[in-house]
Amino acid sequence: MTDSTTAHPSAEGRPTKQVDENMRDECSRQLRDVLDGRWIELRQRARAELPAELMLAPAGLSIEEHRERTTSSLLKLAELGYGRAGFPAAHGGELDYAASCVLFEMQAFGDLSLLVKTGVQFGLFGGAVARLGTHRHHAAYLADIMSAKLLGSFAMTEVGHGSNVQALETIATYDDSTKEIVIDTPTEGGVKTYIGNAARDARMAVVFAQLMTGDENHGVHAILVPVRDEAGNPERGVTIGDNGPKGGLPGVDNGTFSFDHVRVPKANLLNAFGDIDDNGKYVSDIDNPNRRFFTMLGTLVRGRVCVGGGSGASAKKALAIALRYGSTRRQFAASEDQDEIVVLDYLAHQRKLLPRLAKSVALSFAQNAVTERLQELQGGPADASAERDVEGQRELESRVAGLKAVTTWHALDTIQACREACGGAGYMAENQLTQMRADVDVFTTFEGDNTVLLQLAAKGLLTDYKAMWGDLDVPAMVGKFVGQVGERIVERTTGRAGIQRLIDAATGRDDETATDSLAWAGSMFEQRADHALETLGNRLRKATKDNAFELFNNAQDHVLFAARTHIDRCVLEAAVDAQQAMPDGPAKDLLERVLILYALSSIEEDKGWFIEHGRITTARSRAATASVNSLCQELREQVTTLVDALGVPDELITAPIVQ
Amino acid sequence: MTDSTTAHPSAEGRPTKQVDENMRDECSRQLRDVLDGRWIELRQRARAELPAELMLAPAGLSIEEHRERTTSSLLKLAELGYGRAGFPAAHGGELDYAASCVLFEMQAFGDLSLLVKTGVQFGLFGGAVARLGTHRHHAAYLADIMSAKLLGSFAMTEVGHGSNVQALETIATYDDSTKEIVIDTPTEGGVKTYIGNAARDARMAVVFAQLMTGDENHGVHAILVPVRDEAGNPERGVTIGDNGPKGGLPGVDNGTFSFDHVRVPKANLLNAFGDIDDNGKYVSDIDNPNRRFFTMLGTLVRGRVCVGGGSGASAKKALAIALRYGSTRRQFAASEDQDEIVVLDYLAHQRKLLPRLAKSVALSFAQNAVTERLQELQGGPADASAERDVEGQRELESRVAGLKAVTTWHALDTIQACREACGGAGYMAENQLTQMRADVDVFTTFEGDNTVLLQLAAKGLLTDYKAMWGDLDVPAMVGKFVGQVGERIVERTTGRAGIQRLIDAATGRDDETATDSLAWAGSMFEQRADHALETLGNRLRKATKDNAFELFNNAQDHVLFAARTHIDRCVLEAAVDAQQAMPDGPAKDLLERVLILYALSSIEEDKGWFIEHGRITTARSRAATASVNSLCQELREQVTTLVDALGVPDELITAPIVQ
Repeated sequence: MTDSTTAHPSAEGRPTKQVDENMRDECSRQLRDVLDGRWIELRQRARAELPAELMLAPAGLSIEEHRERTTSSLLKLAELGYGRAGFPAAHGGELDYAASCVLFEMQAFGDLSLLVKTGVQFGLFGGAVARLGTHRHHAAYLADIMSAKLLGSFAMTEVGHGSNVQALETIATYDDSTKEIVIDTPTEGGVKTYIGNAARDARMAVVFAQLMTGDENHGVHAILVPVRDEAGNPERGVTIGDNGPKGGLPGVDNGTFSFDHVRVPKANLLNAFGDIDDNGKYVSDIDNPNRRFFTMLGTLVRGRVCVGGGSGASAKKALAIALRYGSTRRQFAASEDQDEIVVLDYLAHQRKLLPRLAKSVALSFAQNAVTERLQELQGGPADASAERDVEGQRELESRVAGLKAVTTWHALDTIQACREACGGAGYMAENQLTQMRADVDVFTTFEGDNTVLLQLAAKGLLTDYKAMWGDLDVPAMVGKFVGQVGERIVERTTGRAGIQRLIDAATGRDDETATDSLAWAGSMFEQRADHALETLGNRLRKATKDNAFELFNNAQDHVLFAARTHIDRCVLEAAVDAQQAMPDGPAKDLLERVLILYALSSIEEDKGWFIEHGRITTARSRAATASVNSLCQELREQVTTLVDALGVPDELITAPIVQ
Repeated sequence: MTDSTTAHPSAEGRPTKQVDENMRDECSRQLRDVLDGRWIELRQRARAELPAELMLAPAGLSIEEHRERTTSSLLKLAELGYGRAGFPAAHGGELDYAASCVLFEMQAFGDLSLLVKTGVQFGLFGGAVARLGTHRHHAAYLADIMSAKLLGSFAMTEVGHGSNVQALETIATYDDSTKEIVIDTPTEGGVKTYIGNAARDARMAVVFAQLMTGDENHGVHAILVPVRDEAGNPERGVTIGDNGPKGGLPGVDNGTFSFDHVRVPKANLLNAFGDIDDNGKYVSDIDNPNRRFFTMLGTLVRGRVCVGGGSGASAKKALAIALRYGSTRRQFAASEDQDEIVVLDYLAHQRKLLPRLAKSVALSFAQNAVTERLQELQGGPADASAERDVEGQRELESRVAGLKAVTTWHALDTIQACREACGGAGYMAENQLTQMRADVDVFTTFEGDNTVLLQLAAKGLLTDYKAMWGDLDVPAMVGKFVGQVGERIVERTTGRAGIQRLIDAATGRDDETATDSLAWAGSMFEQRADHALETLGNRLRKATKDNAFELFNNAQDHVLFAARTHIDRCVLEAAVDAQQAMPDGPAKDLLERVLILYALSSIEEDKGWFIEHGRITTARSRAATASVNSLCQELREQVTTLVDALGVPDELITAPIVQ
């Protein structure tokens, strides 16, 4: 017996196995820690403490049941203090701003209806009051928002305008005779719609509307409007509708608001960036209305950080389910006298899941990087933040926009691949994948339509960030940046060192570097992104006032490619930085292999582009495909380690196929 | 006033507009007719007669309500005679075998729960009785099946085996002492699951089980087993479970069956291909058990034809909704003094929808081709069909398998793209896209997992069809076809002439042909498919008994590529054949442009492969991308015509965003 506790290999192989398992656990733990980033303790606490019975909703609830359950779970989470993250300590908040994003990610391992419901209450509604409001609003409302005593909505989107927020139709007219603001919905297109918390619960809404004093329009501002009385009935002049059944998120009560000359005190204007003074005059520290608008929107960037993080977490959970199932499920024997083959041993199955696992891992690091950056830029008191680092703020917004698009599409694609990889069983709601898929779907178009967001990211790369106070609509923007396009003025601020060091260290010509090296892949990512951007700049530089829209429109696929490849580069940079900082050992080596799979899969997908542009030879392109295959087969052996490293709490994986 | 009724152009432009509209309508009608194929009249009747109030289910029903509604609609459709298509006239059936597939497609414009419910009843359950049973079963059951008086299940899939049907675990043991067959579920893995009609309605099931006489296993056979009595209670020894909520198809009552030594008379064996004689001895005209098994499965190929057609129809409906919405929805102005831009005028939006529209059109022709071929091969009396054209039957099965995979994935991808193209509105259930997306999801793994089906398609290309009576599992198959791989023995039987004529007519070197020509694209499709197959053959020819699995597994991505590109070729061939047969005129020209967009989009997606293999130059590759963009912009002008040509009945498009 004493022998068997030593590491010495024995005929029985048992001690060796024990050692292997210990090593595997240690490797998993190290990887999980590096994925957890700066918030190891917070994430571990969330894993241990978030109550599974709240976090999971049973399948097959009716919409009404699911909504009821979601509201009740929201209240319980608030009771447990989960509403306080990210709010100012002065008003009873706790933890830092980044922590609220990290908690959002952790919550995304559970029911996404609850996630979105809490996101609406604490993030969008609470966040708007905290960051667009000032002390009077904080003192009056934040405590009740954090405790979920005051439930609220974030009423931005309208029937007529979702992406083009500057064109909202709701009107907020200041009436100096009564010192009130009159909120009105003048048209069908101005009805607020898809508003979370609206159909059932919200008592107050942050309403975005064109603020008028006299005949002057000061642009879109946010105003606190009571929408239901204590008894839950709509306030006078407020019409509330229910959006009814949706493609997912059944527990979220999305609805509509319209306003018929609803009067609220002037004090209800969230006045951090613009106010009406005692003489009834509009005043703001920011003179340019566009700049004011984008400064206001910029304080809301956390929503996009959260959506990206939440969808990334969802993809990890789907992968954990599909990879565990694929490691046990057998189908077809190689010959009649053998057992059936474990499906994850098929290359086709590996190719379905492992590159997506690798991308999930890589995206985590980029997510951590934007979360950190958000804390640096907006972690301080809200009112002052816009003044501090304008360029940094714009760069973050641009990166977050692109990363949100890339991550949510990745999540949708990955959850679907996982569902298919589980066959008919994957389609059963009890196995958790279909609801996640249905819920995550909307992440691709809410908090910004992905296609529009990628264009925003491209815009950030093409123009002087100081010039970005211009319109959100890209066609108009093109007209304006005539002559200044093509030189990136702001250096990207994070994640560059690691990959650059690697690339610089790789000597010689491309074809002397191994295909499956991070240095080579990193250089390819750099070249792809740089070339896409440069050539795009050259195309757009030809714009004149007259042809700007046509020129831009004809280049739109190029714009999207430039944005996406830029984000790909940011992702790899962030990942390599994290990997390089690890202590040498098996965990670091394993992560390197994972990142190479991520990078080579991306290169393989774009191989047409790479060959077209003379960046790789056809021989090398084939070699990349062969490397993807062999990396899949190599990493298949490490699947248990990798799945454990994803850090999805076991309690939240209830799918019978992996029990 | 008299003037304005003439076609003469006038300053008001009104008469010209009238003429344009007439021309457009005529063009639409011609395109719709060619898409309708041989069944113009049948499809038009279905469009006019299928009652919208039955075909559509309101959003937000509970599962129980949806199931109840679905069953009730099924009964009403049966009353209207829709259950009779495809059954033998001798027993009260009507129309031909192909017509039942066409009606399935037409029904797919409505609620897919109802579609699948009718598919289970008339297609799978009824089809099995008709084609695996003989006169005694037809006389006893077909009338009641067609009238939906006898509701039934098709109980093939088990917990342990979905794809590998030959390994089913349910046992059917013949007891000569009582002349009964004893059905038993010996293991957890042998429980029948995901069975449509099981949880609520079925009174009888076609149960697939290993048929034993004495100690001898004759392989999988189908046996009619009563599962519920008249009162709806499970028969003795039958345990029925409910699969509960699923990712979609809420109106279909999928469930489980397990059997504890359930006895049925010997006559319940569906004995078209194997029987137990009066002496208790197993007899069959087909000696080889594998061949017998695949002959039985082969008669069920219609299910896959239907699933492909149904998902294709669903994609068309989604495109009709998204394209109509995209033609009216505006967002962002090019400059402050202009109206906002119609979203379909953005290239990015065109690229999201128009190549998918083009592919939908192309796939329709391939669907028509397999439907016709099915009629030729299986349109006659069921019993004799297997004897008639063995090679033709195998070729059809192989093509149907591949086409089902390609079409269902296309549908899923297209419906999702359409949902995103409609933004937040697309996520609202009332706009019809999310339920379609959720329902179609399972089409990628039922009636055969798509990845397995593509391998089946490849197998059909690689081996002598006569040798295909071997195992369904491809690894084992590889071992067996050592030495015979690499030469396609069976000529593809349809659709070849048109494209070949085009290619032959295109003179000179590739780079002298216009990029946007069908001839060039057709030649690229040919080269891609041929090269993929040849090189695959060369790889697999190296197989020995010992390395067969490894060799095959390492080539699995190549196998899938060969299958997919073969199907792509079949699709283009079928489409070009149909287009070439049209009378010269604007409709024919428009269809040509659509097919070029389909083909160039596919070439663009694979451009890496084409350059890698020296089939196109990098200059030509860029030209293809430019052509896709300009074709998108060109066809955007024809969207109304094209959408009308899809033939989706207006009554079934209830989405408020397009009313």
